[in-house]
Amino acid sequence: MTEPVAALSHLDDAGQIRMVDVGAKTPTLRTAIARGRVRLSAPAYALLTQPGQGKGEVLNTARVAGILAAKRCADLIPLCHSLPLAFAGVDFSLDDAACTVAIRATCRTSGQTGVEMEAMTAVSVAALTLYDMCKAADKGIVIEDICLEYKSGGKSGEWRRED
Amino acid sequence: MTEPVAALSHLDDAGQIRMVDVGAKTPTLRTAIARGRVRLSAPAYALLTQPGQGKGEVLNTARVAGILAAKRCADLIPLCHSLPLAFAGVDFSLDDAACTVAIRATCRTSGQTGVEMEAMTAVSVAALTLYDMCKAADKGIVIEDICLEYKSGGKSGEWRRED
Amino acid sequence: MTEPVAALSHLDDAGQIRMVDVGAKTPTLRTAIARGRVRLSAPAYALLTQPGQGKGEVLNTARVAGILAAKRCADLIPLCHSLPLAFAGVDFSLDDAACTVAIRATCRTSGQTGVEMEAMTAVSVAALTLYDMCKAADKGIVIEDICLEYKSGGKSGEWRRED
Amino acid sequence: MTEPVAALSHLDDAGQIRMVDVGAKTPTLRTAIARGRVRLSAPAYALLTQPGQGKGEVLNTARVAGILAAKRCADLIPLCHSLPLAFAGVDFSLDDAACTVAIRATCRTSGQTGVEMEAMTAVSVAALTLYDMCKAADKGIVIEDICLEYKSGGKSGEWRRED
Amino acid sequence: MTEPVAALSHLDDAGQIRMVDVGAKTPTLRTAIARGRVRLSAPAYALLTQPGQGKGEVLNTARVAGILAAKRCADLIPLCHSLPLAFAGVDFSLDDAACTVAIRATCRTSGQTGVEMEAMTAVSVAALTLYDMCKAADKGIVIEDICLEYKSGGKSGEWRRED
Amino acid sequence: MTEPVAALSHLDDAGQIRMVDVGAKTPTLRTAIARGRVRLSAPAYALLTQPGQGKGEVLNTARVAGILAAKRCADLIPLCHSLPLAFAGVDFSLDDAACTVAIRATCRTSGQTGVEMEAMTAVSVAALTLYDMCKAADKGIVIEDICLEYKSGGKSGEWRRED
Repeated sequence: MTEPVAALSHLDDAGQIRMVDVGAKTPTLRTAIARGRVRLSAPAYALLTQPGQGKGEVLNTARVAGILAAKRCADLIPLCHSLPLAFAGVDFSLDDAACTVAIRATCRTSGQTGVEMEAMTAVSVAALTLYDMCKAADKGIVIEDICLEYKSGGKSGEWRRED
Repeated sequence: MTEPVAALSHLDDAGQIRMVDVGAKTPTLRTAIARGRVRLSAPAYALLTQPGQGKGEVLNTARVAGILAAKRCADLIPLCHSLPLAFAGVDFSLDDAACTVAIRATCRTSGQTGVEMEAMTAVSVAALTLYDMCKAADKGIVIEDICLEYKSGGKSGEWRRED
Repeated sequence: MTEPVAALSHLDDAGQIRMVDVGAKTPTLRTAIARGRVRLSAPAYALLTQPGQGKGEVLNTARVAGILAAKRCADLIPLCHSLPLAFAGVDFSLDDAACTVAIRATCRTSGQTGVEMEAMTAVSVAALTLYDMCKAADKGIVIEDICLEYKSGGKSGEWRRED
Repeated sequence: MTEPVAALSHLDDAGQIRMVDVGAKTPTLRTAIARGRVRLSAPAYALLTQPGQGKGEVLNTARVAGILAAKRCADLIPLCHSLPLAFAGVDFSLDDAACTVAIRATCRTSGQTGVEMEAMTAVSVAALTLYDMCKAADKGIVIEDICLEYKSGGKSGEWRRED
Repeated sequence: MTEPVAALSHLDDAGQIRMVDVGAKTPTLRTAIARGRVRLSAPAYALLTQPGQGKGEVLNTARVAGILAAKRCADLIPLCHSLPLAFAGVDFSLDDAACTVAIRATCRTSGQTGVEMEAMTAVSVAALTLYDMCKAADKGIVIEDICLEYKSGGKSGEWRRED
Repeated sequence: MTEPVAALSHLDDAGQIRMVDVGAKTPTLRTAIARGRVRLSAPAYALLTQPGQGKGEVLNTARVAGILAAKRCADLIPLCHSLPLAFAGVDFSLDDAACTVAIRATCRTSGQTGVEMEAMTAVSVAALTLYDMCKAADKGIVIEDICLEYKSGGKSGEWRRED
């Protein structure tokens, strides 16, 4: 996780924020995968996963929210470039022992800038949507460890989280 | 964290999602405080915090993004009610030893429904904005432990995280 | 359907459009129910409804889209007032003989203006979402008969469609 | 209208919804034309069309709303790709005998995915805007027969409604 | 114009930006009127105003854009409170001698905070829309003197521009 | 400023508004620079610029608002094409003698249509944000002379304001 440190790319010489100018970058196919986890109390997790309790509807609602958020990422993150996504997907896996829902989002585009922020935003909003739908059962739910897992494309090439 | 479990309020009897009808709730003054943390590698943290490197601009940009997101929460979270916020604030505190930026968001309204989601969303988007501005220095940055810290107002009254 | 004709309320004396000023109206509890129908070809309808084909996910996705659109109605309809909805719900019923999906949306608020547009918009966007998800199987799908079914509250009181 | 049935493209093998990945599609010039109709009561139609009653302003307002909605289509329809439109146009034709306003929307892009949804959305929101501006005169107005009329471009080539 | 100077209300004691907390303010009826002017070259002005050139459509399009922007003001201005507008109106007056289009916007609400920003935003976006529609005839068009003309309601009461 | 007058490109032969169809235009690298000015009373200017009064935070907040608005330009201006910006930047310069803040916005894209509206919108919203943050000290603040300064790219090539 301690890769060679570049400068903070969103600051100019005067220490003021700026959008990175991507006009000179070559468009390439770019992929990013992000992940995160929602940790529920045991009773809330049981409620979410018990048969006939609409688990599929809840997860699908979070998936839809995550996909919509990926498309609206540049509206939310000030210095993020808007770009047309070729794909945005959100998947869930449940861990009964840990009482957690793991979220993974994949975004792809063919463009001049990466889609890490789109994938990170999709995970975050899917997690918030799960929180919203389960908070009546457990206000203490925690959204944990949202991070980038993989990216490819662009000048910096392929990157994969080492853990 | 293991409070008495209510039903998942966003599911109807057929197990289909629904917005909770708040039409019959009494408007009260409601406050919610949420928190989260952004963990950077040591070199990225050093870069962010070194004098003359625009730390103030970076944090202010994340603050603005968080406040705007709080106001747009109901656009992002499908079953969340839209409501006019009386206040949305985002604060940061830096921990040099841990290389983390802690984020705390406070929202207030006088209305028929709580503002937990607004505060959680403000923290999430402020964290994503920090990630975005520091990712050139460290792709491995982790957004940790977004959770509710406090809420007051409404039928369920005051709630405070026990830790 | 031929009720007494009022003037077009969104035109001023000069024949120019204007928002109706609702500042002097008394806030009352207001409800509106709208409906519409999506007509598919027999093969597309069969595909949508066949077991294991994700009918629940498709309908839930359309429901989420409809609810989100209800909340964003004033962003879409130029002279519509923005207002906080107490409730927005979208339901579906399938007619195997007619190969149609009927959509019904209910909106409620306590405010100075009605929520007919919110309910009509929810039906329209839920229908468009169904079209989008089924169009690979049938480009010819038709969205039919979107109309108001019921409203209550406000000066004009209760209204119910006569058919 | 009973073309060969493909699978529902927005469902994966597990029956879960997903955005279609268009990353491998060749960008081509794509056009879509959609249509719909707003049916008014005779008195409301007379009011809308009588000289000096601002018919032009009303239709122009609906046109503007339709064009804006076409551009915001991917914000509304969960699995729809965002893409820059080269053109979005909305036209009206009035049928005095039937008391209807026919709406036609045309969208064009040069991209990896079609613009049917953009055209359908433009028609829907233009129709809703007409409803909104005439509803004081007739709550019973019906939005009828929103459908695709024509599309060209992409792998499936040209398609024209047969009626 | 040199009224007694209050502090910058959007800065806290640490000099950091913050939203003003309006939770304790009494809701009152509030009105704001803002104005501005678009100055065209003589040929562009002649083109805009010549009979049969769609002047009405152009102005109506700018009016619609201004009204929509008033409703979306809190999405654009970071520390502005979102609130439901009771009314938003935009009017134009043409000055043939000066080749200018004067814009005036009026907003009203019954709430805890004023609507100056909504009126200023409506004028600005109406002006930008006029610029957009006339820029093919004159890239040099200038948007001039956007300012508040009048406000009433709230603790500070009535204010009227002195000129 | 009196360049050769073209027709109003957003009107069709019937005098109705339309989006310009840019489908046949060649994508080129396009730049636009716009500018404007915010004029404060002397006391308000003094308050904004006095040491320790958060001038940097205020300007940064306006910068962020301007950049976000540039990306959302096509949502606000009805006939403006949406397009992915390669760059959007907003800069300020203060004139102590005149008590003004000058704003300059630069936008760049590689596309089929120019980015003048994006730059003009960035200036406008940055100016509105400054107004919002300083209006408690001076309601009479004026936003002045928003205009295009430079554009390049596209068929009409380079254009530079002559003053």
